[in-house]
Formats: sequence, C-alpha cells, structure tokens
Amino acid sequence: MKKPLVGIVMGSDSDFEVMRAAAETCAEFGIPHEVRVVSAHRTPDDMADYGRTAQRRGLRVIIAGAGGAAHLPGMLASHTILPVIGVPVESRALKGLDSLLSIVQMPAGIPVATVAINNGRNAGLLAASILALQDKALNRRLAAFRKKQAAASRAKNKKLG
Amino acid sequence: MKKPLVGIVMGSDSDFEVMRAAAETCAEFGIPHEVRVVSAHRTPDDMADYGRTAQRRGLRVIIAGAGGAAHLPGMLASHTILPVIGVPVESRALKGLDSLLSIVQMPAGIPVATVAINNGRNAGLLAASILALQDKALNRRLAAFRKKQAAASRAKNKKLG
Amino acid sequence: MKKPLVGIVMGSDSDFEVMRAAAETCAEFGIPHEVRVVSAHRTPDDMADYGRTAQRRGLRVIIAGAGGAAHLPGMLASHTILPVIGVPVESRALKGLDSLLSIVQMPAGIPVATVAINNGRNAGLLAASILALQDKALNRRLAAFRKKQAAASRAKNKKLG
Amino acid sequence: MKKPLVGIVMGSDSDFEVMRAAAETCAEFGIPHEVRVVSAHRTPDDMADYGRTAQRRGLRVIIAGAGGAAHLPGMLASHTILPVIGVPVESRALKGLDSLLSIVQMPAGIPVATVAINNGRNAGLLAASILALQDKALNRRLAAFRKKQAAASRAKNKKLG
Amino acid sequence: MKKPLVGIVMGSDSDFEVMRAAAETCAEFGIPHEVRVVSAHRTPDDMADYGRTAQRRGLRVIIAGAGGAAHLPGMLASHTILPVIGVPVESRALKGLDSLLSIVQMPAGIPVATVAINNGRNAGLLAASILALQDKALNRRLAAFRKKQAAASRAKNKKLG
Amino acid sequence: MKKPLVGIVMGSDSDFEVMRAAAETCAEFGIPHEVRVVSAHRTPDDMADYGRTAQRRGLRVIIAGAGGAAHLPGMLASHTILPVIGVPVESRALKGLDSLLSIVQMPAGIPVATVAINNGRNAGLLAASILALQDKALNRRLAAFRKKQAAASRAKNKKLG
Amino acid sequence: MKKPLVGIVMGSDSDFEVMRAAAETCAEFGIPHEVRVVSAHRTPDDMADYGRTAQRRGLRVIIAGAGGAAHLPGMLASHTILPVIGVPVESRALKGLDSLLSIVQMPAGIPVATVAINNGRNAGLLAASILALQDKALNRRLAAFRKKQAAASRAKNKKLG
Amino acid sequence: MKKPLVGIVMGSDSDFEVMRAAAETCAEFGIPHEVRVVSAHRTPDDMADYGRTAQRRGLRVIIAGAGGAAHLPGMLASHTILPVIGVPVESRALKGLDSLLSIVQMPAGIPVATVAINNGRNAGLLAASILALQDKALNRRLAAFRKKQAAASRAKNKKLG
Repeated sequence: MKKPLVGIVMGSDSDFEVMRAAAETCAEFGIPHEVRVVSAHRTPDDMADYGRTAQRRGLRVIIAGAGGAAHLPGMLASHTILPVIGVPVESRALKGLDSLLSIVQMPAGIPVATVAINNGRNAGLLAASILALQDKALNRRLAAFRKKQAAASRAKNKKLG
Repeated sequence: MKKPLVGIVMGSDSDFEVMRAAAETCAEFGIPHEVRVVSAHRTPDDMADYGRTAQRRGLRVIIAGAGGAAHLPGMLASHTILPVIGVPVESRALKGLDSLLSIVQMPAGIPVATVAINNGRNAGLLAASILALQDKALNRRLAAFRKKQAAASRAKNKKLG
Repeated sequence: MKKPLVGIVMGSDSDFEVMRAAAETCAEFGIPHEVRVVSAHRTPDDMADYGRTAQRRGLRVIIAGAGGAAHLPGMLASHTILPVIGVPVESRALKGLDSLLSIVQMPAGIPVATVAINNGRNAGLLAASILALQDKALNRRLAAFRKKQAAASRAKNKKLG
Repeated sequence: MKKPLVGIVMGSDSDFEVMRAAAETCAEFGIPHEVRVVSAHRTPDDMADYGRTAQRRGLRVIIAGAGGAAHLPGMLASHTILPVIGVPVESRALKGLDSLLSIVQMPAGIPVATVAINNGRNAGLLAASILALQDKALNRRLAAFRKKQAAASRAKNKKLG
Repeated sequence: MKKPLVGIVMGSDSDFEVMRAAAETCAEFGIPHEVRVVSAHRTPDDMADYGRTAQRRGLRVIIAGAGGAAHLPGMLASHTILPVIGVPVESRALKGLDSLLSIVQMPAGIPVATVAINNGRNAGLLAASILALQDKALNRRLAAFRKKQAAASRAKNKKLG
Repeated sequence: MKKPLVGIVMGSDSDFEVMRAAAETCAEFGIPHEVRVVSAHRTPDDMADYGRTAQRRGLRVIIAGAGGAAHLPGMLASHTILPVIGVPVESRALKGLDSLLSIVQMPAGIPVATVAINNGRNAGLLAASILALQDKALNRRLAAFRKKQAAASRAKNKKLG
Repeated sequence: MKKPLVGIVMGSDSDFEVMRAAAETCAEFGIPHEVRVVSAHRTPDDMADYGRTAQRRGLRVIIAGAGGAAHLPGMLASHTILPVIGVPVESRALKGLDSLLSIVQMPAGIPVATVAINNGRNAGLLAASILALQDKALNRRLAAFRKKQAAASRAKNKKLG
Repeated sequence: MKKPLVGIVMGSDSDFEVMRAAAETCAEFGIPHEVRVVSAHRTPDDMADYGRTAQRRGLRVIIAGAGGAAHLPGMLASHTILPVIGVPVESRALKGLDSLLSIVQMPAGIPVATVAINNGRNAGLLAASILALQDKALNRRLAAFRKKQAAASRAKNKKLG
C-alpha cells in the first residue's frame, strides 16, 4: 500500500468494530490509510508522538474514535494542525452521549470535526471529501458514489411501491 | 476580496452573533470567504442551489450554523461533496442540545463535520486546517497561530503564579 | 386503490417497521394512501419534488418518518403548505431523542406536527382526524373507533378485576 | 367575529405570553378563533366539556399549550376526535423538556400534533394548513405567506452581504 | 375481601407487570385493595368517575401507574382530594424519563406523590405508611417489615463476608 | 402553636425560599408544623435522630427538601415509617435534574413521595391530603380549596375572553 | 489477611458484579481489604456505624457502590473524614445517570471521589494511588502496572497493524 | 510557602473563579499548594510535563478543573500515578453536563476522582482528606472542621426555628 494519507486511530481494539467502517471506506475510495491502537490514557506519549509526527509522515487527515471520556480525538488535535475527525463510540451505560460530548465540545482554539455516534462510515467519507479537494479522480469517485447512493435509495422506493 | 474559498451560511441573521467568529477567523488567516443567510426551511430552493453550485463557484469548504431542528448543515451536505462544517447554535429552551443532535447525528452516507455549540471560532479554524493541506503559507500561519496560542496560555499561567 | 390522499414517506426502508402502522391505519379507515422511500439526504431533489408536487397530485396530508438527524419531515414541510406529520424513529444509540428533537424543534414559519417516538399508529390517526374534517363518513368511523377502543380498554379492566 | 374554527386553550394565563402567537397567527390569516384558560388539573370537568363539545360547537382544530406535567393537550385529545395541536410551554427548571415529553409521547390511540417548545406561531400555522385543505382562499394566503417569508429571508441575506 | 382502601389503577394491562408489586404489597400488609385498568386517554370519563367517586366509595389512597405521556396519576389527582401515588412505568424508547417527568412535574395545586420508575413495590409501601397513621396494627406490621428488611440486608452481608 | 403534625426539613437555609411554600400551605390549612434545618451530610446524627424520633414526637408527615445529591428525604425515610415527602430543590448547574433523580429513584423498601422540582406548595398540599384522611374538617377545607382554585382558574378564563 | 485498609461497601449484593472489580484490584496490588453489604436505606444505623468507626478500625479508604438514588457513598462520607470513593452502579431504567448524579453532586463540605458508572476497577486503582502515597512498594507496583498496561495497549496496536 | 503538596491546575484562567475555592481550602487547612494554568489542548506538552514531573517535584495530589470537552484531569492522570481530582467547570450551553461526563467517565486503567460541577471547595477537602492519612495534625484539623460545619448547620436551624 502507498504511504498512508489517513491515519485511523482508536483508543482500544474494542473500538475496531466501529472504526472498521472508516478503514473500509478509505479502501473503497482508494485512499491509502493506516489503522492504529493508540490510547490517550494508557499510552499518552505514543499518542502525542502520533499527533506530532503525523504531518511530517505525510498524513493529511486523522480519524480518531473513542468512547466514554473520549479524549483521543481532542488530544491528537492538540498535537497537530491536520484536520482531526472524531468518532464517538457508543458506551455501555450512557450510550455514547458521554463520548459525543467529550469529543464535540472542544474549546475555542483546537477544533475536532465530529461525526455521529458509531458512524465510522461518515468519518471515512468526510476524510474523502477533504482529500478530494486536491485529487480530481477522488472527487469524481465521490460524486459517482453519491449518484450510486441516490440510485440505491430510489431502488428501495420502487421495491416498496 | 478574492473569490471566496469558504462559504459561511446561517439560517437566520440572528445566528450571526455566533457565526461572526467563523468569518473573523477566516479573515485573520487571510482566507477569502463569503457570508450568507440561506434558510433550509424558509428558502429551501436557494439552499439547494447554494449547495449544488458551491463547488463550481470555487468554494472549498462550507460552514453552516443553525439552531433548534438545525437542518441547514446536513441539507447543504446532501447537495455537495465539499466538506461541510456544522455549527450548532444555542437554542433558547434546550440550550443547543437540539441543535447539536440535529447536526451531528447524520445517517451514513452524508457526513457533517460538527464543532461545539456556538463555536464559530473552531469552525473557522477547521476550515483553515483543511485549506492548509493545499496552501503552505496558510499551513505556516496555522502552525504559528498554535504557538502564539500556547504562549498566551503560558502567559496566563505566569500572571496567576 | 383510489388517488392517494396521504403520502407516507420514510428516509430508509429500515424505517418501514415503524411506518407500516401508519399505512395500516390509513387502510383500516379506508383512506387512500401511498408509501414511499425518499431520503432528504441521499435523494434531496426527489424529496424536494415530492414536497413541491404533493398538493397538486392531490395529497392532503404527508406523514414522514426518520431517525437520528431526522430532516425529512421538516424539509418536506419547507416545500409544501400541506400539513406534515413527523414520526421520530427510534435510533440505536440515543433511542430516538435525537430523532424527536430534530423533528419537533422546527423554527417559527414551518411547522411539523410531531407524534411520539415510533408511533406510526398515531400519525395515521392524526391524518384521519384531519381528513375527517371534510369527510363525514370518516368522521363517523373515527368516532366509532374511539368507542371500540374505549370498550377494549374496559374489557381489559373486567378481565383483570 | 365569526363562529370560531380554532380553539386556543391554555392551562394558565401565565402561558398566554407563548399562546398569544397562536392567536395572532389565526388573526393574521383571518381564521375565527377563541382563546380560553381551561386547566386539565384545576378544572378537569370544564376541560372535558371543552373537548366533548368542541366539534358540535363548530371548532375544527384545538391548539392547547401547557408546561411541566403538561396534560392539557392529551386530555383534550382524549375527549374529541378533532385534531389537537400541543404547544409545550417552557418550564422554569427543566426548560420545557418535561412539557415536551408530557405532550408528545402519547400512547397509540390518541394523537397530539406537537410543535416546538414555546412555538405558538407554528401551532397557528399548522392549524391554518389544516383548515386550508377546505378553504381555497386560506390556501392562497398560506402560499403567499410562504413566499413573503422567503423574501424576508432573502432580504436579510442581501443586508448581510 | 373487605371494602378496598387502596385503588390500584393502570392505563393498560401491559402495565400490570409493574403494578402487580403494588397489589402484592397491599396483600402482604393485609390492606384491602382493588386493581383496575382505567385509561386517562382511552376512557377519560371512566377515569374521571373513578377519581370523583373514590372517596365516597371508601378508598383512602390511589396508586396510579402509567408510561410515556403518563397523565393518569395527575388526572386522577385532579378529580379527588385523596392522596394519589404515581408510578412511572418504563417506556420503550426513553426508558421512563418521559413517564417520570409527566407524573412528577405537576403544577402547584394538584400534587402527585411520585415514586421511582417501575417501583410498584414502593407505591404499595407508601400507601401502607399513609394508612398506618390511622391503623396501629398496620403501623406495627410496617415497623416489623423494616426490621425484617434490615435483617435480610445483614444476612447478605454475612454471606458475602 | 399546637404540637406539630408536619415536620418541614431542609438541608440548608438556602432551601427556605422553596420550602417556605410548604410551611405557608400548612398554615393556610391550619396544620401545626415545624420548620428545621437538618443536613443529611453536615449533621447526619441529627438527621437520624430527627427521623427516629419523629413518630413518637407526634409527627405524622415529614416534608424534606434538598438539592444536588439530595439525600435528606431518602435518609429520613430510612429512619422512620412515617410518610416522607421529598421536594427536589433546583440546583444551579443541572437545574434540579440531579435533585429530582436523587430523591425519586429510591430502591424498593424505602419509599419517598416526590413532588415537582421546587414545588413546596404541592408538598404542603400532599401532606394536607394525607392528614385529611383522619380529619373531617381538614378534608372539607381541602375540598373547598379545590373549588376556590377552580373558580380562580375560571375567573382567569373570563378575564381573557 | 492483614487488617483491611480499604473497605469496599455496597448497598445490595446485586451490586457485587460491579464491585468485585474493586476487590480484585485491591487483591492484585496486595492491599488488605474487606467487602461488606451495608445499605444506607435498609440499615442506616449500620451504615452510620461503619462510617463512624472506619478510621479507628484502621481503614484508610472507603469504596462505596450504589445505584439509583445512590446515597451510600455520600452518607458514609458524612460519617468519616476518610476519603470515600463512589462507584455509580448502572440502574435498569436510567442506565446509571441517576446513580452518577446522586453520588457526584455532593454539596460543599462533604466530598465523594466519584469514578465512572460501573467502574469498580478504577475505584480500586484510585484507592491504590492514595495508599501508594505512604507505601513505596505499592507506588512501584502502581508504576509497573501502568507500564504493563501501556505495553498491552501497544501489543494490541501491533496485532491490528 | 513550603514546597507544594497539592497542584491546582486549570485549563484557562476563566476557570479560576471556580478553582479559587480549592486553593482557599488548601490555605485554610495549611496545605502547601501551587496554582497553575496548563491547558491540555493549547499546551499539551506542558501538561504532559506537569503530570510526568509531579511526583518527583513532591506533589501528592493534583486537582484539575476544566469545562466542556474537559480533558485536563484525565490526561494529567494518564501521566502520573498520583491521585488526580477532577472538577467539572460549568459550561455555558450545557451547564457542565459535558464537563462532568468528560471527566468522570474515564476508561478502566486511569481513574479520576471527580467531584460535583463547580465544586472547587470539595476538591480541596478531598485533597485534605487524602493528605490527612499521613498527617495527624491535618487529620485533627479536618475533624475539627467537620464539627464546626455541623455547628454552623445547627445554628442555622436555631435561627430558623
């Protein structure tokens, strides 16, 4: 695989069920990517390194998923100026409301681009839309995907009708 | 001003108090931008046109703010493959929880990059981080901003100490 | 079936489990209706067309169900002056609180008549009560239904006693 | 004033600040209406009478506003087959979340058409959209209102631009 | 059974799973009681009658359980000056938060004594504590129950130790 | 004043603004009562004594108000078999949601009769309704109060009409 | 086992599934501890005794778990100046939000060190970190644990890579 | 002042209004402490250094306050095995619910001892209770404080009586 443009990071391998969709979406659109377990809490220095070196390693976008007191996306964002996309992973008791608020309510100065709870798919699509700004072929693939998606929705309509 | 790269859109001029920070941030980083009132509910065809024509008009990123049943960011995203950043505007009764959930909980297929309630500033910074992927000067300005921001934080520490 | 008076619309066929009750209620009261999958996000132009043409196609009421960042009912309402009934469909993580707030918290100018989470049945009954204003036979059927419903409740009481 | 078609009811005169918008909207669209204080809790028999006699008194739609454990809309709906529109009035401590859930979460069998917290305006517009099904002039006025509303939104856009 | 002192009422027989504990508690303490299905929404006149005649029929306390937009306890309270105990029944989507707020947030003038979600047991115990004010034997049984309950808790402690 | 029948207890004198209404309601209905500051957290032994001695001191009902992690009503209930009425006092940050849940969600075995957030008035009325079971004159006063309250509501209706 | 330094207390043996992790963590770090069922509500005097005698019995830290209207941690804290760690146990209906707020929102004067819902593990680790302030060997074991934990996280990363 | 035992850290000087109470409590109990502004997001390396060096600099307890997506307490905890006390600072829109969940819902492995929203006072008292385990004089001061606090509560009771 070519040098990754998207880094997909999660705090624990138990988040992989959700984050796999981000990786699959990158693959679907031909975007080189890497998948990593880096915990803001258990390996904070690795996390800081990951953020600090991301740009010089050639990454363009980071997708980070975490649950509960989900600090990974915001902390990665504090170590890089690359766009960071946060995926709140559903938690057992509070169903991801804690994950969502911990990720989205960042203070002024350090943004995280938050998507819906468990929506690894949309994190991948958002990364694609960012990279497509510089990549005409990817731009065309994204536009084609939207058309295919609309067609699939219309097909469901016909099936129901 | 040069042809805008960022479109800042809000459902009502009452949202401008929040969205001004997005515009000011673009200005601070020298990013050409435009500011528009386009209501998903009151002018849905204008909204659709805005989304549909955004890419060909040269926009690279859309920042959309709305409150309550906040449909503007998601609907713009449904009409364009450009990255759309959503700013939940604090609502009177539910304090923006409705705005946040209406914006962030998008279904798979159409992402919106959501920032914190009322955080127009971070929407602007996120747009800058996306554009900086293709603009080395902006990338340097962003990195410099982060350093200045850290210095300001350290200065507060000294003042308190 | 006669020309439909009620359009039952959902964002995805996965919402049909909930929306079926709306269709069955229309059938139970002899109200001609149609069932459609039209996604505000995946097929926004189809959605706009559906709203825009609804009145001239003879529809009197639209029932729209959606989950998460549920924009379908509000966006249909922005394209028609027909009464639009919104059904918040229970979402996986937030259990429909997101769906409810995304549908009910519409801004002044574009109303959506919101019913309970997952309550396709009540959406159908509300449509019936609106149509019964112009249809004496339907009015009588609704009144009879209420009596039957009360009798069923009383029967449960006796069974328990 | 002609025989009222819309009954605007509230549990307490303290709700009038919110419900006035419903009355003003009826007036704006030339819809005969009445305004009443009828408390589900303090005058339950009056409330039952109001619901029971509404249809035969010529009412077509009831708009009911209440706050906290807001039982008025649902109880009126239990006494009539007319469409009942519920307006959750913002409460002091819980900001109307209690009012909203008490009104919208009706059990299958008795629907209430719920609008946003404090949105008396939309309750009036929803009543108008229901009555417009039988009244071509009102239908035209509603369509014209939507156009005027869109124009006002566009004017705000120009002012900002 | 002797003339009932406690009326246990629920909106639907599906609530009986929860309300059974209230009946069993009355039985355990030798309190004559009756169990009824009376729906505030489906049989509002029966509900009003139940409340209105409760005192003259010899009831001393009413226990009412309901879920969702749970109006039964509050509406019964509006028709009687007897103490009314409300039991919020867990709802499917919102897990009883709606039921709780609909029951507990009564306006000044008409109180409902609310217990925990699904806690029919405590509703029965609360009724017992009220009736024990006039019934020395019941008072002794309640005091004995508390001792037995404490002993059971201590036994669990020993088992664990 | 005669020997108190109702003990009105609060965790802090800052709760008196809310609990005053309970005292005034007792006074209005001629119910002898006492008002105490007893903190479950700051004076837990006093609290336990208050609960333990309440019945033998002649109290019939305890009304306890507290905010935040509001343990006073439940802990008093654990020390007495008298009915305990809990008043959740609005807290600064969470607006009384914490107070409400801390009071109402008692485990099976120890009930607390919870009223609405800040509703000292209803706590007083609930105490009156309990005491009225043994006091015909009070029963008549309560019935008269309900009529007066209904009349006041009707007067508001006339004023508005 | 040596004289316990940590008292692990729960309101009911049904909480043991969660609290076991606290005990196991103490065992893992070689911290003498005891496990008790003491209910704030069912055995309030035992609870008070437990708190009052804890320090003189040699305990250094109390870990208390409870669900719903969870008063045990706060009430123990009111009876001792030892640090009390509160574990909110997930409740059936409200998923532990009630437990969390009942434990964490303590008034000024009596602190409870609250950990995440169901997180008995972290309660044990927090107790260890407190005891490690006086115990160099424990301090080393804690530091070693952190390293092992980081290594395990890195191993997951490698496995995924 | 002697070498600090407690480090009081906040993300921004705007949090000082809340955190001052922690500092004042340390001062009141004669505990040497330091106050710092260290932002997890704006100065992540300073934050990591602060956590990493805390133990060797002689700190025994860290108190960290932050609002919104409040990562400071959890991230400090990831860099030290000292006990970390988290103070959720009330946020503008969501009133500190976001701050609370972001701090308290830490994953297994890295605990944070969370106190109530805005309760800097209790953070200071909790630090004191931890330090008192090794400091008999402080232990006596804490015990005396509790007595004084109880006396003040009793005095309020007398004033009211």
